Amino acid sequence: MTHKIFAHLLAAALVAAAGPGSAADCEPSRWGAGDQVGNANLITQQSVLKASQLIKVGKIYSLGIVIDANTPAYPPRSLSLQVVQPGQQMGKVASPNSIYNDDLVQMWLGIGPQIDGLGHVGSEGNYYNCNKAVDISDISGLTRLGIENVPPLVARGVVLDMANHFGVEHMEAGQYFSVDDVKAVEKKQATPIREGDVVLFHTGWTDAKLASDPDAWVSGEPGQSEEVARYLASRNVIAVGADTWGVDVLPSPDPNRSFQGHVILLKENGIHILETMNTGPLVRDKAYEFMFVLGAARIRGAVQMIINPIAIR
Amino acid sequence: MTHKIFAHLLAAALVAAAGPGSAADCEPSRWGAGDQVGNANLITQQSVLKASQLIKVGKIYSLGIVIDANTPAYPPRSLSLQVVQPGQQMGKVASPNSIYNDDLVQMWLGIGPQIDGLGHVGSEGNYYNCNKAVDISDISGLTRLGIENVPPLVARGVVLDMANHFGVEHMEAGQYFSVDDVKAVEKKQATPIREGDVVLFHTGWTDAKLASDPDAWVSGEPGQSEEVARYLASRNVIAVGADTWGVDVLPSPDPNRSFQGHVILLKENGIHILETMNTGPLVRDKAYEFMFVLGAARIRGAVQMIINPIAIR
Amino acid sequence: MTHKIFAHLLAAALVAAAGPGSAADCEPSRWGAGDQVGNANLITQQSVLKASQLIKVGKIYSLGIVIDANTPAYPPRSLSLQVVQPGQQMGKVASPNSIYNDDLVQMWLGIGPQIDGLGHVGSEGNYYNCNKAVDISDISGLTRLGIENVPPLVARGVVLDMANHFGVEHMEAGQYFSVDDVKAVEKKQATPIREGDVVLFHTGWTDAKLASDPDAWVSGEPGQSEEVARYLASRNVIAVGADTWGVDVLPSPDPNRSFQGHVILLKENGIHILETMNTGPLVRDKAYEFMFVLGAARIRGAVQMIINPIAIR
Amino acid sequence: MTHKIFAHLLAAALVAAAGPGSAADCEPSRWGAGDQVGNANLITQQSVLKASQLIKVGKIYSLGIVIDANTPAYPPRSLSLQVVQPGQQMGKVASPNSIYNDDLVQMWLGIGPQIDGLGHVGSEGNYYNCNKAVDISDISGLTRLGIENVPPLVARGVVLDMANHFGVEHMEAGQYFSVDDVKAVEKKQATPIREGDVVLFHTGWTDAKLASDPDAWVSGEPGQSEEVARYLASRNVIAVGADTWGVDVLPSPDPNRSFQGHVILLKENGIHILETMNTGPLVRDKAYEFMFVLGAARIRGAVQMIINPIAIR
Repeated sequence: MTHKIFAHLLAAALVAAAGPGSAADCEPSRWGAGDQVGNANLITQQSVLKASQLIKVGKIYSLGIVIDANTPAYPPRSLSLQVVQPGQQMGKVASPNSIYNDDLVQMWLGIGPQIDGLGHVGSEGNYYNCNKAVDISDISGLTRLGIENVPPLVARGVVLDMANHFGVEHMEAGQYFSVDDVKAVEKKQATPIREGDVVLFHTGWTDAKLASDPDAWVSGEPGQSEEVARYLASRNVIAVGADTWGVDVLPSPDPNRSFQGHVILLKENGIHILETMNTGPLVRDKAYEFMFVLGAARIRGAVQMIINPIAIR
Repeated sequence: MTHKIFAHLLAAALVAAAGPGSAADCEPSRWGAGDQVGNANLITQQSVLKASQLIKVGKIYSLGIVIDANTPAYPPRSLSLQVVQPGQQMGKVASPNSIYNDDLVQMWLGIGPQIDGLGHVGSEGNYYNCNKAVDISDISGLTRLGIENVPPLVARGVVLDMANHFGVEHMEAGQYFSVDDVKAVEKKQATPIREGDVVLFHTGWTDAKLASDPDAWVSGEPGQSEEVARYLASRNVIAVGADTWGVDVLPSPDPNRSFQGHVILLKENGIHILETMNTGPLVRDKAYEFMFVLGAARIRGAVQMIINPIAIR
Repeated sequence: MTHKIFAHLLAAALVAAAGPGSAADCEPSRWGAGDQVGNANLITQQSVLKASQLIKVGKIYSLGIVIDANTPAYPPRSLSLQVVQPGQQMGKVASPNSIYNDDLVQMWLGIGPQIDGLGHVGSEGNYYNCNKAVDISDISGLTRLGIENVPPLVARGVVLDMANHFGVEHMEAGQYFSVDDVKAVEKKQATPIREGDVVLFHTGWTDAKLASDPDAWVSGEPGQSEEVARYLASRNVIAVGADTWGVDVLPSPDPNRSFQGHVILLKENGIHILETMNTGPLVRDKAYEFMFVLGAARIRGAVQMIINPIAIR
Repeated sequence: MTHKIFAHLLAAALVAAAGPGSAADCEPSRWGAGDQVGNANLITQQSVLKASQLIKVGKIYSLGIVIDANTPAYPPRSLSLQVVQPGQQMGKVASPNSIYNDDLVQMWLGIGPQIDGLGHVGSEGNYYNCNKAVDISDISGLTRLGIENVPPLVARGVVLDMANHFGVEHMEAGQYFSVDDVKAVEKKQATPIREGDVVLFHTGWTDAKLASDPDAWVSGEPGQSEEVARYLASRNVIAVGADTWGVDVLPSPDPNRSFQGHVILLKENGIHILETMNTGPLVRDKAYEFMFVLGAARIRGAVQMIINPIAIR
């Protein structure tokens, strides 16, 4: 279908679009003006080779939990799945030699285990690398920073057991860990954070609350303080995750800066975020270091993606 | 919501359910009566360790191509994505310190790069391991064999360049390769298929046709003959894929046995299928052997899943 | 997109489709072999003229209640709505002179006030007028008996206040009314049921339970006995409705004949069913007779449709 | 689920929301500060009684055409329907005495025959009656001006045959009719527009183009000039429709004022808009005057609704 008319109308509109999001509100990425990848640029053949050397016993971990229509999520996110048998209504034979199920979903992509693309959270009218919100946020898909741009994330993974650091089975909603806490765990576990790492935090929150009290689970969470996000950025990690739905502590100590860690990581530093990561099995095995492998399904223009990264050690 | 009434009605109905799918039509899996995993059971710490030794230069490949609303798919599959800004209508400030995009999709999960779960194709009323179609194919999600049961697929990956074998840039729709063809390529490439492997076929079909002639791409495909599927099963592979949307040749030499390879692999042998795999970059690099890593997102009861496996060598 | 391949495959399959649904299981409609309209054929210019004479005071009633994501419905039905502003992300100016909201839904059409098309409920493999389930129930839309075939339902409407008959504010789940009950109310209200009528029953169920106890509301209902359905068919009505989600009594006195009223009305007699009708305002006004007007939105191949019929007296 | 946290965050955000949409940009409705109904307030028992007197021969017309997945619509609107048989997979018996089809849709509500609610188009940050866009346009549904507020539209309907006026089978895209044209047709047909009317324009566009050239159909349209909208508002009509997808002429004579008729009718005057109305059968019968009846299905917070109004004469 040719929509020249619509294109015409939109062209007229673009002139008028100004408002927030001036160049002053953003800092170009060190990876170059056109970059859509951020710190994932740090992945090199050499870094991958090095990460692969962390595979010592061959044990694998599924970092994505199972989701369904009952999985709580940040409003108004929801999920609905249908399994159907096209052409086989009422036992009709669609094919002489086979039967089949097919499936369709209506879902928000920010449910359960997910990666936040660099177009998910920004500030002052801008997303990562001075991409203006008004320019890229098309209703039918991000025109830049879409999830299809995320390269395979293959890197050294480190999980930091913050619950253990605090001597609890699980941290509480609103409880955050500071840079000192993180450094203490790095040292204790002998797993210093390095450039190019994927860093995961284990708070115990999802193991403790998702099944037993889903409303509490989604209404708050323990997590990183804003300073931790800056610290991780200073270490040049490529992704930050946690066993919580939002990584940042909620409620935030400063209610005017909720999810500021998202702004720091995604927008200011091009660092991807990994949510609802199943870190329990890792820490129970004291598997603090591993090769992390994530290939996120590539729907053009998607903001986030449901994922199931694999840890191998 | 309690639906005791409905449960009551359904219980009455279950008594009546008979028809096709008797025990005689299926063979229990060698992995045990309750098994939902199939040959992926062959993945062990030792096999993973061994596969990891294929990482020699640290190069990574994204085996999933980008999909969108225009990607052709087996009818009536379709995809629609919306990117939205909850709470930020017309520039409203939802949060004092940030802005965000969110996204939702309405889609069939069998589009583009996908894994077929063991509940996707069966025959004679049964799916893998004597799971009766009438029992497991609930409208709201498979009650057994759902995609959430697929473990991380980490294994030796082998890509067989069939197009090169036939001396063409791409094979044609309806053109199939035989067991002899496969064996010849195994030998030529010095990549014998081994137990526990993920085997991918490069036909050149998607590179040649998806963009240039999408209707042709989805209306037919080169692929494996039925005997190849049996041969691969005899080799105890864990997954079989190709750079086509359906792996099996279409039209089939025998129109009454279309997609019979699916029946052989999925139902009879518990071997997962990987479709629309981006094998071009692998064969261009002559990267015939690699570590294959796939963590499929885990929607409970889903039949298939859009994926982006990673090859590392 | 041309799908000759698929057409070819399906043609082969059609030969094999036999099973239930033989001609013996159905009786052709008195309206002719190709009829998809049923008793709505009784609507004539004369019947409309006569119905219009029931408009005496000009008062109008909206028979459809408001539905949303929280409205309970027969599983697995659900509804999700999004209001969006295409091209206006973050206050972007899409048009120099205007702003706009748009909306999309993911929903099952059998929620709240709804009309059941003649392809909704059948038996013995057949729907109305010997339409075989295997033939018409295409995944992408009914190929016959779709809601687009329902003509405007303009007729004399009669509401029978069954709650008042039993001297209660509302009838109870599982409580049914018999033919004698219906006849008694016809007489008491001086509203005899006539050929071509739309008959609605007021049980008080929705007014009493939908808001106060939604789980109870959807788990059962008062309603017509099977004999009432036959009686109404004998009277040649064109549609039967109630202020319940399913018109038929549930639990049924005979658990093996749940919703048998649907079979009798829809399949055996071509009489449409109207569910969750807002009859409260009518009976409170003693507006037992009125002109009923319903134009159901016409999505090709839909089974049901959300509606809001208008009563005018 | 309790989302106190989110409520808290949003409360903080509301303080910051200012920007466009000040009181100066809107004029309160003459129907009162809280009014959500607009000119539909003109519907009274007396007006309904009077409209009913237009029923003289009992002929009924379905003003809604049939829509499906192929119906073109303003981007990015689309529709997808699935017909399914819950609990009856592969011929399973869900109920001893019956079979059934169910259906679900994923669709934008602005497709084909539709009513635009008063929250559909506004300007300067405001919708009808000084409802600020930022306040009412919630992602999960309009909090004011949702379609559930539209009362039954029962009124005198008038169709003006503009194609006949211009001596053509159909007007062309970009061709508009002026106030003088409208007045000429009013006089010629002897159907003066009166307060409380529903006015429909017949341009011949949909009859001529929808099936034969769907791309052309949706890329432009004949329609009312801006002045006609003002004229209709001055006549206090309750709704304005046409046999085009957008009522207003497109391209507009002034590209900076596209769809200004929507602003005038919806926002400035509380007059509903009816699109893609099937006026052909009316003008072929010279049925220029009739009783118009529309009960739009009531999804809470919906912006638009697919409809099928009924004309009765």
